Amino acid sequence: MIDEQLSEDERFMRQALTEARKAFEQGEVPVGAVVVWNGRIVGRGHNLVETLSDATAHAEMQAITAAASSVGGKYLAECKLYVTVEPCVMCAGACFWSQLGAVVYGASDPKRGAGRLSPSPFHPKTVVRGGVLQDECEELMTRFFARLRT
Amino acid sequence: MIDEQLSEDERFMRQALTEARKAFEQGEVPVGAVVVWNGRIVGRGHNLVETLSDATAHAEMQAITAAASSVGGKYLAECKLYVTVEPCVMCAGACFWSQLGAVVYGASDPKRGAGRLSPSPFHPKTVVRGGVLQDECEELMTRFFARLRT
Repeated sequence: MIDEQLSEDERFMRQALTEARKAFEQGEVPVGAVVVWNGRIVGRGHNLVETLSDATAHAEMQAITAAASSVGGKYLAECKLYVTVEPCVMCAGACFWSQLGAVVYGASDPKRGAGRLSPSPFHPKTVVRGGVLQDECEELMTRFFARLRT
Repeated sequence: MIDEQLSEDERFMRQALTEARKAFEQGEVPVGAVVVWNGRIVGRGHNLVETLSDATAHAEMQAITAAASSVGGKYLAECKLYVTVEPCVMCAGACFWSQLGAVVYGASDPKRGAGRLSPSPFHPKTVVRGGVLQDECEELMTRFFARLRT
């Protein structure tokens, strides 16, 4: 049972990583996200801040808005968000308002992640779990910023 | 000098209130926002959560995205956001990423306002000021929720 759960989380995190790679290729900070409902992806997104010249265009915001449109309701209590990097304050707030059932992330973000805030900005009913495919998610970020510096 | 500043803040808060009344008339929680650059409104927005079935469609998000499009850049350091109610965590995060020069709000929101969080989710360079036309902003909210209960 635990193995099945782990492999489902890894399977969907791979889809979030596919989104993150799209961001990487577009010169965007490589963060990707998918929203899953009943084992099906109902929203996808990757960081589009530079492309749209919009500081709010984070991967999670795109994926949550897409999922709400797809499921036909603003509340996503039966949905799980998979995102390659720990959500920032803005995106944690978006998770709160959409009452996401679960948020699963890969790499931690000690500087901008919502985990550093008190009280937690996530909805009390949202299950939050980090570290899924952490190495791959981190490696993509590290490679992106290393390329920027050269 | 102080009087002039006050009256400019009130003038733009009146524009945010005009946006909030549009939300009220659409059956949305009545919050409105404008973004001002060089004395000119470059972005407007009102709450569209129910209309769009999107929990992220807050007034500030619309106004910030519109302003970024209008000024042609993701950073709004020279801009002021006027919003009728204290920004929530999500919207404070959006203010952070867009590096808004100032955030001016009307009514406080002790329950959902970003002010209750530590550390503050606003950008350290953002000047935050509350209480502008507070009574009018609060009255609109009170009237909305009273109507819901009848």
